[in-house]
Amino acid sequence: MSPLTKDVVKFGAFVVTSQVFHLTPLSFALVNLKPLLPGHVLVSPRRSVPRFHDLSPAEVQDLFLTVQRVSRMVERVFDASALNIAIQDGVDAGQSVPHVHAHIIPRRREDLAHAGGTDAVYRMMEGEQGDLGAQLRGRAAEAEAGAGAGGVPSNNDGQQSRARFPAVDADESRKPRGEQEMQKEAEWLAAEMAGDEQSGRNT
Amino acid sequence: MSPLTKDVVKFGAFVVTSQVFHLTPLSFALVNLKPLLPGHVLVSPRRSVPRFHDLSPAEVQDLFLTVQRVSRMVERVFDASALNIAIQDGVDAGQSVPHVHAHIIPRRREDLAHAGGTDAVYRMMEGEQGDLGAQLRGRAAEAEAGAGAGGVPSNNDGQQSRARFPAVDADESRKPRGEQEMQKEAEWLAAEMAGDEQSGRNT
Repeated sequence: MSPLTKDVVKFGAFVVTSQVFHLTPLSFALVNLKPLLPGHVLVSPRRSVPRFHDLSPAEVQDLFLTVQRVSRMVERVFDASALNIAIQDGVDAGQSVPHVHAHIIPRRREDLAHAGGTDAVYRMMEGEQGDLGAQLRGRAAEAEAGAGAGGVPSNNDGQQSRARFPAVDADESRKPRGEQEMQKEAEWLAAEMAGDEQSGRNT
Repeated sequence: MSPLTKDVVKFGAFVVTSQVFHLTPLSFALVNLKPLLPGHVLVSPRRSVPRFHDLSPAEVQDLFLTVQRVSRMVERVFDASALNIAIQDGVDAGQSVPHVHAHIIPRRREDLAHAGGTDAVYRMMEGEQGDLGAQLRGRAAEAEAGAGAGGVPSNNDGQQSRARFPAVDADESRKPRGEQEMQKEAEWLAAEMAGDEQSGRNT
């Protein structure tokens, strides 16, 4: 269970309750099944709509104030010096789950030197490594086969065809994380967010 | 001159007044010297600060309401089906001008099939083609040599070392646009924004 809510939180068609580490009236933040770099998290509106233009002004404002607060926290906690913030807004821009989400990826100098340089993160985001939809479907299939719990898609809404970049740096050793590992990280980051709020770091 | 303001508008150290097509109390939108795809524009806070965490809550809210309005307009006007929205927040994330800016890049199905697929846009953004700082410095140097007007940096604040991706699709034929071409586009997009506001499309 999430430390933050008794409600079921869904990201597209997928139940992600145990991955959620921050909730506001209109937005939520979740840890990733397969982070591209340490601290790679997502922020979404609570209302599941596919496109950025679907959001109300109040949702836009809440979403990006949340992105800002979460960004500060992950940059600090993961000892980073910069951030990539990106929205793939629509299938033809590489979106893999039809629920608006901002990627927040903490960056450090030379962190991707081994993978081709700073911008390798985009290839990773766009390649199979970053295909959130495929990863969540894979976890759901495992859960159905009795290998775990959670992450069950309620229907096929999570499926979209998606252009792929031929992965230059396909790291086949990168396994999806287990529920426990994600929940532990979510609890840790939830505590950090609460600490920021109490200390006034985020106000 | 910009159709919108008699003030000088600066992006980092660069004067970009003639490129501005939308102004709000806290944000502005500008056309690009070298758009990666048709309709590639930028939205920035009027206050020149390098990092997203430097923005006040009011600035964050105004910035992303502006991003949303501008996104809708360019998607419609450039007949696109999706958008990439991205912030390189800090040098180690690929930022080339130390003034917060969101890239908005209209996308269409298969628009980058010739360049390697949907995500080639990121390589382009990160490679020399997307190095806004270098491009603006190049224009400023031309202006100083008497080849044109505008875009003069007042100091060296626009310079940052920036990790480079070895450009897979270096399009050497893509020349920086002239002042007149950019101003014409800015005037066109300013009229489209005004039309959206009058028609209530953006409310």
